[in-house]
Amino acid sequence: MTLSDVKALTFDVFGTVVDYRGTIIREGERLNQAKGLQVDWAQFADAWRARYRPSMARVMQGGLPWTNLDALHRLALDELLSAFQLNDRLTEDEKVQLNRVWHRLQPWPDAIPGLTHLRKRFILATLSNGNMALLVNMAKYSALPWDCILSAELVQAYKPDPRPYQMTINLLGLHSYEVMMVAAHQEDLRAAQAQGMQAAFVPRPLEQGPHHVPDLTPDPAFEVVATDFMDLAQQLGT
Amino acid sequence: MTLSDVKALTFDVFGTVVDYRGTIIREGERLNQAKGLQVDWAQFADAWRARYRPSMARVMQGGLPWTNLDALHRLALDELLSAFQLNDRLTEDEKVQLNRVWHRLQPWPDAIPGLTHLRKRFILATLSNGNMALLVNMAKYSALPWDCILSAELVQAYKPDPRPYQMTINLLGLHSYEVMMVAAHQEDLRAAQAQGMQAAFVPRPLEQGPHHVPDLTPDPAFEVVATDFMDLAQQLGT
Repeated sequence: MTLSDVKALTFDVFGTVVDYRGTIIREGERLNQAKGLQVDWAQFADAWRARYRPSMARVMQGGLPWTNLDALHRLALDELLSAFQLNDRLTEDEKVQLNRVWHRLQPWPDAIPGLTHLRKRFILATLSNGNMALLVNMAKYSALPWDCILSAELVQAYKPDPRPYQMTINLLGLHSYEVMMVAAHQEDLRAAQAQGMQAAFVPRPLEQGPHHVPDLTPDPAFEVVATDFMDLAQQLGT
Repeated sequence: MTLSDVKALTFDVFGTVVDYRGTIIREGERLNQAKGLQVDWAQFADAWRARYRPSMARVMQGGLPWTNLDALHRLALDELLSAFQLNDRLTEDEKVQLNRVWHRLQPWPDAIPGLTHLRKRFILATLSNGNMALLVNMAKYSALPWDCILSAELVQAYKPDPRPYQMTINLLGLHSYEVMMVAAHQEDLRAAQAQGMQAAFVPRPLEQGPHHVPDLTPDPAFEVVATDFMDLAQQLGT
């Protein structure tokens, strides 16, 4: 198994391809202006994202029946609207619109040029916990050049459960070592490697904002460590 | 429910978007030259396609466990290689390569310009009995500009079973009347309408070759009848 075996790249999306925190802050600040609110949207974004893993864990541990990410985002949003005392300040339409900010996330600056290069040589697919509609709408809104959109929703099991990785290998009709997972999160990459996939780590030090510096020391088991998608393209010889 | 409700178009692929018969004939004639064969590839293509519906019916009636279209194509190919006395003339690699002609099908001349227009306003998805790998590879090979690739394989049930249509509506997160099925086959459109979808009939009189003229009188229940994808784009106001 070498880099020259790779035929398809599968991408984690939130944080790896798109900057959810920056997008929520920018859209939120426009909402502050339009509605005369004084919300700290950085805090709001962090609190929203903090509910991400626990809400998926609740589904995977059986505390909730299968619930897609749009619906999990909405459950979390309703809690936050109360916590931030916004419940009466937004109409239901505005809440729906705010929840769909996840369909409008903006790519990191290197993402589209990098994907465009990589696409000349590889099949590019999402492999995200986002639901299909969310990923399709985001790709259309932000012009992300995917060959194929795949989601944990298709097997109703969230990463890092093995099923989404197995599904991806099977649906692409490839050997596991012909598929390389690309992610900013080491847990995701380790789960992909456990299914026989290759792994490219692209740390995104700003994912959680300028004041939060996660431990980005790469696991030496990853086949590639790249600074961004342009660097990834270069390391993969495109 | 009106045309202005439509947000996504879902496309039948074989015959509607791509010309399988013409592609098989062209590739087959190159194989004749390379290997000194004298196969009538029009006859071969027709015989291959004739096994399409019966083989899916066998799966749906329980005579075979779930078998994706690549594998059904290969079962049919093996029968045809015997019938055309080609079994000993091709290596296993050449047989694999021939079976993958379905991954390399060429679009009808209006397909890419039409899809490119339509994509400005609508989500474009496949809704095909072809398996995911086949559809992904074909899109890449023939530069088909899909937003999303969806296949009957995802629910392990072939059209016109209701499940692939229901899956599509659910995964796109739309109301059924916001999704319009586009096909050259009236049975497919009627099955989509039975699930609440809208229907656009685009007859392809040459699908089965110049000597076979199918009955193309459109069902008056279809919301749109278009001569090709450019006409469809115009009728949908793009």
